[in-house]
Amino acid sequence: MDYMAGKQSIRFKKPVCLLAASSVAGKKEGEGPLGEKMDLLVEDPMYGQANWEAGESQFLREAGEIAIRKAGLSMEDIRLAFSGDLLGQMISSSFAMRSLQIPFYGVYGACASSGAAISAAAMAVHAGYADHALAACSSHFASAEKEFRFPLGYGNQRPKSATWTVTGAGAYVLGTVISDKNRRKNEAGKGRVPGAGNGEKTKSETEKSYILIKGCTTGVIKDYGMSDVYNMGACMAPAAADTIYQALQDFQMEPEDFDCIATGDLGEVGKDLLISLLADNHMDISGVHMDCGMEIYDSDKQDTHAGGSGCACSALVLSALILPKLWRGEWKRVLFVPTGALLSQVTANEGETIPGIAHAVWLERSQQ
Amino acid sequence: MDYMAGKQSIRFKKPVCLLAASSVAGKKEGEGPLGEKMDLLVEDPMYGQANWEAGESQFLREAGEIAIRKAGLSMEDIRLAFSGDLLGQMISSSFAMRSLQIPFYGVYGACASSGAAISAAAMAVHAGYADHALAACSSHFASAEKEFRFPLGYGNQRPKSATWTVTGAGAYVLGTVISDKNRRKNEAGKGRVPGAGNGEKTKSETEKSYILIKGCTTGVIKDYGMSDVYNMGACMAPAAADTIYQALQDFQMEPEDFDCIATGDLGEVGKDLLISLLADNHMDISGVHMDCGMEIYDSDKQDTHAGGSGCACSALVLSALILPKLWRGEWKRVLFVPTGALLSQVTANEGETIPGIAHAVWLERSQQ
Repeated sequence: MDYMAGKQSIRFKKPVCLLAASSVAGKKEGEGPLGEKMDLLVEDPMYGQANWEAGESQFLREAGEIAIRKAGLSMEDIRLAFSGDLLGQMISSSFAMRSLQIPFYGVYGACASSGAAISAAAMAVHAGYADHALAACSSHFASAEKEFRFPLGYGNQRPKSATWTVTGAGAYVLGTVISDKNRRKNEAGKGRVPGAGNGEKTKSETEKSYILIKGCTTGVIKDYGMSDVYNMGACMAPAAADTIYQALQDFQMEPEDFDCIATGDLGEVGKDLLISLLADNHMDISGVHMDCGMEIYDSDKQDTHAGGSGCACSALVLSALILPKLWRGEWKRVLFVPTGALLSQVTANEGETIPGIAHAVWLERSQQ
Repeated sequence: MDYMAGKQSIRFKKPVCLLAASSVAGKKEGEGPLGEKMDLLVEDPMYGQANWEAGESQFLREAGEIAIRKAGLSMEDIRLAFSGDLLGQMISSSFAMRSLQIPFYGVYGACASSGAAISAAAMAVHAGYADHALAACSSHFASAEKEFRFPLGYGNQRPKSATWTVTGAGAYVLGTVISDKNRRKNEAGKGRVPGAGNGEKTKSETEKSYILIKGCTTGVIKDYGMSDVYNMGACMAPAAADTIYQALQDFQMEPEDFDCIATGDLGEVGKDLLISLLADNHMDISGVHMDCGMEIYDSDKQDTHAGGSGCACSALVLSALILPKLWRGEWKRVLFVPTGALLSQVTANEGETIPGIAHAVWLERSQQ
């Protein structure tokens, strides 16, 4: 009954399965390298709603519904939901969950919210508190610029170190095992979402492999005194380095034991800093490191500067790139480490530094 | 390994103990009926900091430190922390946790955040993910008015249905059992906080009784279409009614099985609505109901209109009134149901309705 590993990690000894994942993305994300792999692309940034915030919430609601359908389940089968986003008082999550009517805890880790939500859902499923739990998060370029920087109409210029907040949402259904009910539904094709992209797992993939969540590492807040809101990568790199270092220590593993160590949204600037910080501690992750912020856009063509950011950045890359690679067997083991900058417009304007946090989730393909 | 009870509750079958609680409150709260029972009263609303937000964060940090000391533990003994507050991007929690350096997940439920944090901490301890976990939350009159309504300098008038956001923070240390180490420390008086008020449990109380967390009920968001930001009680009452009804169904108990069913901060208006909503469903809780929002201030003398609100309202009443009654044996069993209004200034200004949520925690005195 003691699942504590090392200093700040939990190792699950019973199988916690990531049953299904969804990706609902905006127009710009659809034009990026992962565009074709998203479940759903939504051209209208307001998603038919009256304002940016309600639009973002709609992305999240849709992502939740798609993930639940893909798992072959209905809303009533989901016992607990954990969701977070970047907006003040997490209104995107609250309004999405108002529609879904699932018992709900808000979780917050800024752009690391996907890691917090998946960890919390995995802990709940593993402990026997829920047969099925939903983890979700969202972000939106326009609502984030309004929340943290300037309204779009202001036409503010962005420095090269700035990242572009991803518009979209990802959701994940976790359960103890793939039940016969789900298997039957998937075999009959009923679990399939009409119009879903290549990111969706196919019938044969569901049958031949599971993705297990083997453990998670809870982040400690790190603050190296940076205060530039246009250089989030540098603010978050110390937290990413700390969590990755601690996860590998706690799980007694080497970087090469993972096919990929995927950070959230450090971007070009933060990625270099992360590699260098870990090298100072005699850990070389350069051979297996990938940053989700650098995968979602083609920075040169799409003018996104240092890369993508926002809760949806790592969530969409997880759903559309990382999980399919695990399902297909290209990768066996991934350490997913979304990173968050714990600022608000108020703290930034009041001259506070920007603390960072990163939460790690150990994902592993299991064949049965 | 299956702890699911009914539709949306979890029943803990192994003992999860609430080892220590703290209450750090502001000047106005100190002048209220529970003032003498707080651990620490802070006259300066900025707590020596440069702004309201940093001041609120300092209340939270202090509450965390006091709770950990009262449990006879040190910071390194706490493996996981769950904390929430009302500020955008939960900066009070983030900046407090930056100081405490405990592995940390942000949890959000507006003024129900104490319920979310205690539930999450209890789940983690019960499952064997942490020997000791910290749950905490804060709120602050000035930072909340600035965040949700108008800056204080504006001198806005408040209608009678408005509540007063409580300035302060509460923190709770949860563990599997009171260890011999803690017991020795408490016996030697080392766990005692200098200058702490009557809210602190005394040596003899620690020796003779435990407070167990027997279960929790996760709230579902309820929205009856209210949109008056000066009448939060009415917005939250439907959620409180739903969670209380479901908790009693799930745990197969009657209202009278509890010595007290304590809602968070419905205030006078919301309390009447709650009683009436439950009566419509043939449930009478009027004999055992208490609202924390109506306990913390003397409304007539202190000009607080409908009562207190904010995350710290239910948290301070829990620490200073409810837990001491359990420790002293005046009460045996309490259902603690903090309530939250899931709005932001943006959704309110954009004309959205105000959804509510309530999370329940079943507290019980155990004598060993």
